[in-house]
Amino acid sequence: MVQKSFTILADGCFPSHEIPLSHLRNAQCVVCCDGAAVKLTEFGREPDYIVGDLDSLSGTFKEKYADRLYPSADQETNDQTKAVQFCKEQGATAITIIGATGLREDHTLGNISLLADYAETFPDIDMMTDYGVFTVMTRSGSLPSYKGQQISIFALDSQAPLSVGNLKYPIPNKPLSSWWQGTLNEALGDSFFLTFDEGRWIVFRCY
Amino acid sequence: MVQKSFTILADGCFPSHEIPLSHLRNAQCVVCCDGAAVKLTEFGREPDYIVGDLDSLSGTFKEKYADRLYPSADQETNDQTKAVQFCKEQGATAITIIGATGLREDHTLGNISLLADYAETFPDIDMMTDYGVFTVMTRSGSLPSYKGQQISIFALDSQAPLSVGNLKYPIPNKPLSSWWQGTLNEALGDSFFLTFDEGRWIVFRCY
Repeated sequence: MVQKSFTILADGCFPSHEIPLSHLRNAQCVVCCDGAAVKLTEFGREPDYIVGDLDSLSGTFKEKYADRLYPSADQETNDQTKAVQFCKEQGATAITIIGATGLREDHTLGNISLLADYAETFPDIDMMTDYGVFTVMTRSGSLPSYKGQQISIFALDSQAPLSVGNLKYPIPNKPLSSWWQGTLNEALGDSFFLTFDEGRWIVFRCY
Repeated sequence: MVQKSFTILADGCFPSHEIPLSHLRNAQCVVCCDGAAVKLTEFGREPDYIVGDLDSLSGTFKEKYADRLYPSADQETNDQTKAVQFCKEQGATAITIIGATGLREDHTLGNISLLADYAETFPDIDMMTDYGVFTVMTRSGSLPSYKGQQISIFALDSQAPLSVGNLKYPIPNKPLSSWWQGTLNEALGDSFFLTFDEGRWIVFRCY
């Protein structure tokens, strides 16, 4: 199957770290959430698609990019979710979300947790921030790492027990009942693994 | 009882919004987490106490503020928790935490959720960010608001049912199984309330 890798630029804080910036620069295809399209052009790259209610775009901007506007007025979902839906319709096989954190903390929390919803039908999805990468685990498995890499794990289901392997601080088949409980762990080698029977887990790997 | 209101300045992103800045300016007493003390002096205010492992402070700085250094090398808790513990020992009756969000997202998530742990023994605690205030609810009750105020509610216990009153989008005695599910609500008047039998809830009110 041909890989169709899409990058979504959300309209949170525009990244400043070189890893997400370089990803944006080299992305096959960038789908911008609304006003993020303006930031992308200021960064020096053209948006491939622009989705959202488009309220925050000027008339001139909309005219210039009329061939790539995909307006959606759905009030029930946020622009990040509209963009993911759009990528799916375009046949995306992998999605990276950038710019979804760093402003309102409630948006940040909401956007991060939505990854788990997307992952149900779209396993290959992650989110790059200025500090690291968020990934969702909905079944046991391993993730690549490097020795000393800072790792945090968050439970979306506060009663589901978790075990981890190859991390500095063991989690022995017990639930993470508060968000801080799985934070500030550290990879011991080039991969680590999560084992669980139920639950959804958000894993953050610092760069 | 005499009110002893303490403000903790954590070493995340120094605030830029006028509400937390004004709070810092007028605070009775500011407890700085480690390097945050330097930022506070740059802002033009002297720290009252400095707690943490103090590794990030220069020799000159430590000399100048030698009378208010409270070193703690405990590796089991983070500096925010050390500062809360310190405030408690000083007889604080209320605590406001500032500067605990805005950098690494895993720290942000951890710090926010720690509010619920502190609230078990310290009910009058909140966190001011550049966008709003986080408060913990461990029993049913109401919070002040204004009509149109943006409200987000996060469950720390994903299976506990919640009802809300006087918010635009009703929550009818059901769990918030994902962090996004209680976001982007709106106050209908000068207060709103949460009703529940069990669980811990983090409420965010935008300014």
